[in-house]
Amino acid sequence: MNDEHVAEQVLEANMGFYLALEQGDLQAMDELWSDDDEVLCAHPGRGPLRGWPEVRQSWAAIFANAGNPQVIVTDAVVTVRHPLAWVTVTENLLAGGHTSVATALNMFEYDGQRWRMVAHHASPLMG
Amino acid sequence: MNDEHVAEQVLEANMGFYLALEQGDLQAMDELWSDDDEVLCAHPGRGPLRGWPEVRQSWAAIFANAGNPQVIVTDAVVTVRHPLAWVTVTENLLAGGHTSVATALNMFEYDGQRWRMVAHHASPLMG
Repeated sequence: MNDEHVAEQVLEANMGFYLALEQGDLQAMDELWSDDDEVLCAHPGRGPLRGWPEVRQSWAAIFANAGNPQVIVTDAVVTVRHPLAWVTVTENLLAGGHTSVATALNMFEYDGQRWRMVAHHASPLMG
Repeated sequence: MNDEHVAEQVLEANMGFYLALEQGDLQAMDELWSDDDEVLCAHPGRGPLRGWPEVRQSWAAIFANAGNPQVIVTDAVVTVRHPLAWVTVTENLLAGGHTSVATALNMFEYDGQRWRMVAHHASPLMG
């Protein structure tokens, strides 16, 4: 499996994350994320959450309260350090009639079968 | 070398980064960061910069324009996936009479001798 193929797999996992986000699909998040207690998630403007139960709850709350945001993802760049890889993207978000732009660092770990998310850190872009 | 010892080494590298930041020490940044073209740095509110030359220039500009910020680092938590490791921290910054709080994800890679920074993503905390 060459690096280019690995990068494609990671980008597919990354797209799967944004699809789950747009669709408000908590079950897809369950499948996508690693379920260990070290996973990390920082939503824009917020401090980090740790461990899948806490991170999962934050997605459930977002889906319940904010509805499903629309996200246009641009500028994806992947870095592979097998079995880890990370992707930076620009997130163009439309949620509840409000638009915002964030930069995100998404980290994935290969579990022997597929790439699972271990970290998502999104930060608001300003000016 | 056990995991606890590794975590200590990573936290030391992480403290080295904040010391270099406080002292405005570009040479220390040179030594701390990996110099490859995949290193990643997102300053609070900004999009990601890539590659050591571009990242280095951003630190030089910060040190020249903003002076040396004071940084109180709290809540450091390290995750080790040898030869990679990442640390999340809360950054309490005082620069130019202005205080701010950010959450940061700092990633390090072991080069066989020491842990070198490969990514720094800081995002402003809001309310």
